[in-house]
Amino acid sequence: MAQKPSIPKGTRDFSPVEMVKRNYIFDTVKSVFQKYGYLPIETPAMENLSTLLGKYGEEGDKLLFKILNSGDYSSKFLQELEYTDKLDDLADKNEFEVYRAEGKKNKELSEKFGTRVSNIMTPIICEKGLRYDLTVPFARFVVQHQNEISFPFKRYQIQPVWRADRPQKGRYREFFQCDVDVVGSNSLLNEVELIQIVDEVYRLLNINVVLKLNNRKILSGIAEIIDASDKIVDITVAIDKLDKIGLDKVNEELASKGLSAEAIDTIQPIIMLSGTNREKVTRLREVLATSEIGLKGVDELEVVLNYLDVLKLDLEVELDLTLARGLNYYTGAIFEVKAKDVAIGSITGGGRYDDLTGIFGLKDVSGVGISFGADRIYDVMNQLELFPKADGAKTRAMFVNFGGEDELYALQILNEVRKAGINAELFPDAVKMKKQMNYANKKEIPFVLLAGEEERKANTLTVKNMESGEQSQLTVDELIKVISI
Amino acid sequence: MAQKPSIPKGTRDFSPVEMVKRNYIFDTVKSVFQKYGYLPIETPAMENLSTLLGKYGEEGDKLLFKILNSGDYSSKFLQELEYTDKLDDLADKNEFEVYRAEGKKNKELSEKFGTRVSNIMTPIICEKGLRYDLTVPFARFVVQHQNEISFPFKRYQIQPVWRADRPQKGRYREFFQCDVDVVGSNSLLNEVELIQIVDEVYRLLNINVVLKLNNRKILSGIAEIIDASDKIVDITVAIDKLDKIGLDKVNEELASKGLSAEAIDTIQPIIMLSGTNREKVTRLREVLATSEIGLKGVDELEVVLNYLDVLKLDLEVELDLTLARGLNYYTGAIFEVKAKDVAIGSITGGGRYDDLTGIFGLKDVSGVGISFGADRIYDVMNQLELFPKADGAKTRAMFVNFGGEDELYALQILNEVRKAGINAELFPDAVKMKKQMNYANKKEIPFVLLAGEEERKANTLTVKNMESGEQSQLTVDELIKVISI
Repeated sequence: MAQKPSIPKGTRDFSPVEMVKRNYIFDTVKSVFQKYGYLPIETPAMENLSTLLGKYGEEGDKLLFKILNSGDYSSKFLQELEYTDKLDDLADKNEFEVYRAEGKKNKELSEKFGTRVSNIMTPIICEKGLRYDLTVPFARFVVQHQNEISFPFKRYQIQPVWRADRPQKGRYREFFQCDVDVVGSNSLLNEVELIQIVDEVYRLLNINVVLKLNNRKILSGIAEIIDASDKIVDITVAIDKLDKIGLDKVNEELASKGLSAEAIDTIQPIIMLSGTNREKVTRLREVLATSEIGLKGVDELEVVLNYLDVLKLDLEVELDLTLARGLNYYTGAIFEVKAKDVAIGSITGGGRYDDLTGIFGLKDVSGVGISFGADRIYDVMNQLELFPKADGAKTRAMFVNFGGEDELYALQILNEVRKAGINAELFPDAVKMKKQMNYANKKEIPFVLLAGEEERKANTLTVKNMESGEQSQLTVDELIKVISI
Repeated sequence: MAQKPSIPKGTRDFSPVEMVKRNYIFDTVKSVFQKYGYLPIETPAMENLSTLLGKYGEEGDKLLFKILNSGDYSSKFLQELEYTDKLDDLADKNEFEVYRAEGKKNKELSEKFGTRVSNIMTPIICEKGLRYDLTVPFARFVVQHQNEISFPFKRYQIQPVWRADRPQKGRYREFFQCDVDVVGSNSLLNEVELIQIVDEVYRLLNINVVLKLNNRKILSGIAEIIDASDKIVDITVAIDKLDKIGLDKVNEELASKGLSAEAIDTIQPIIMLSGTNREKVTRLREVLATSEIGLKGVDELEVVLNYLDVLKLDLEVELDLTLARGLNYYTGAIFEVKAKDVAIGSITGGGRYDDLTGIFGLKDVSGVGISFGADRIYDVMNQLELFPKADGAKTRAMFVNFGGEDELYALQILNEVRKAGINAELFPDAVKMKKQMNYANKKEIPFVLLAGEEERKANTLTVKNMESGEQSQLTVDELIKVISI
């Protein structure tokens, strides 16, 4: 019996059309990463659960896809539980009896009990999980291979990750991350280099972007001067609303979050911060004068801005104090990139983290990295029609198959066309013209080639431009010139 | 407490050095696939188990990695089993009691019982598995997207697959497959095209290969003329030993497998088949004169050889009747490629299959495809040192960082070097020269660049060739010429 085939929810097939576009993005970022001396690594899809658990918070642990141990996993499970006895012990005897009596009718009771059993069973029957991001596997890689790596270690990594999230528009259970990091160097030149990479990638992809820049130490400084280190998020969230709700409402919100009138007063210049990046830096230096860490953040920011001035980047860089992504994780610079012509979230983000590898026992390895959001970049480029029509990966020309001598003639011409680096094919069956043209049309092949007895005798072929409909009779050399990208 | 990090057995991390080499292989095959009009698709790592189960035989089902349902999978499991009661029913009551009493001491008993429980539990707690190959997901893709696809569908797919095999040298639990197929066309031109692809790929990779060619229909014909269709494998295995053990022993082996003296006599010309491919074809046509399917196979083979003559391939193509890979699967041509200079198994293989998609309800879709074995190709190229020293993905030059003005000067020169498409970097910290040179050495960067006050004033820089040790003072334009690949 035939099954109706489908794929798990939250996952995707990628068609040739989509793949060519996706590869255009990946190939572009890779070429830029490599131009700056970053090299690829890859890690296995499966990691030991001991590597993954506890790294993404309680919620993250739940969202890990876990892989059932192979073979007879149950005898281990049965033995560890000593079958029913342990479950009896484990669950309140009474609760267990109630479950057995009523579990089938009582959904809530059943789920509660089932969750307890799941929590006991999972670590016994699963030792491996699918990677949840590229950061933890990268940290594991650095620690595991620390003796083979020459630091600073500049690597990029483009691989899928898996999360058992509830699927929704734009959120998938399998998606690609595209990370570029350098670890083992505190130099702010690394931050600058990543900004150069952002500049170059988006110039090549033709997307207008603004790079927003902040520094975790400045946020710590702000909290320090008003003695409210637990309120950083509240403050950045409130400031972020300034344009929408106005200063009074922002101050009201801050008060409602428990900030004293004095504290609110102190940070007025920060809420109202405006002007050029340099003006903002000057103002911040004044406001944060009493905070050592705050001034350190301002210094770091200024060094980065100085480098950027020398490098004369086209990129618009904007100091934005409301940027607070990954607050518990980043320790210095924080970056975020937004597309200017499409309303969509950030398409690239990252920052400096001072302790990537500590979780695996290697202390004092500072790093800085950014991650390109391939799915969102894809959406932006699709929406703005930025993908090149003539992509070197697509098929440029198709020979119509007339069979016999004509077919052999076509095969020989194709050899020359391919030698010139052009992707081309011969329809494999000498079927009706219409069927062959349909194929070329559906595959969006821009040129169709025809050669019958007349062309063969003249050592030429007829080229049809599928967009304009124009036809011309050309030699092979002329053809190659016409259809080259 | 720090964990000592490791990865699951049978999986691998790929370092930058390995990745650059692997990508060299992948990029080469991709460029050739595309040159012939094949385009990429990708399918999710996870497929529904209903898609995968029953497609690889009983052994294959066991080797699938299964993914635990997310969330509370146990309440479903508990309910379906109605907890202990169902297990009581399921197992012989007595067996179950024995297990509970003795399972802990009796390993065999415990495993036997555990396996029964595993077999019941798995389908309840797992709905998804990791793909085992690219063929079944491709078949699923074709059926699921049949209305969007224009046939003949020429696709390639390069993705990892997972098998819970016992890991051993050269056998991994996660490895890449690299498949190229065309479905929806019976034309033998497709077979020819795949042979052209093999020729071009191995010419580009600089590996000397021989392509062995056979046809399933010829094997069927041989079986038909001696009325022994169940003995095809025995026959091909015996013939394969001719060079090693001689004709008498081959005939003895055939007799021991139950072939009659008459049958053995009949296939003597086939066992002794030698000479050019054309001579072999002529001989086969005589021997198989009474077998319709056998003659059809000879015809197909001859058509392919005719095309290859016209195309004048460099590739050595050898008709080899002992080739019987995937016997139950292939229906026409069978290919296998061997490296001539390294003793290793086949590095590419494939064939024609007449019913790829039938398992998913789409009948009569014939296809032909081959699969490149990336891991083995990697081993061959490593052993023969065929990887290019100067790979466009590697870093070509490193600027030593002297800090201050020198650093800014270096950054500006780097801009120009990168604009010329050359991968280059600046060491991010102005630390001791020795440390910086060590880094360049370990990363195998072929050119180190130095610029201090003297060079800056002269608008030049000093270039050190790390292999020869030579140093020269050059302008930026001269530098770019020297270090370009």
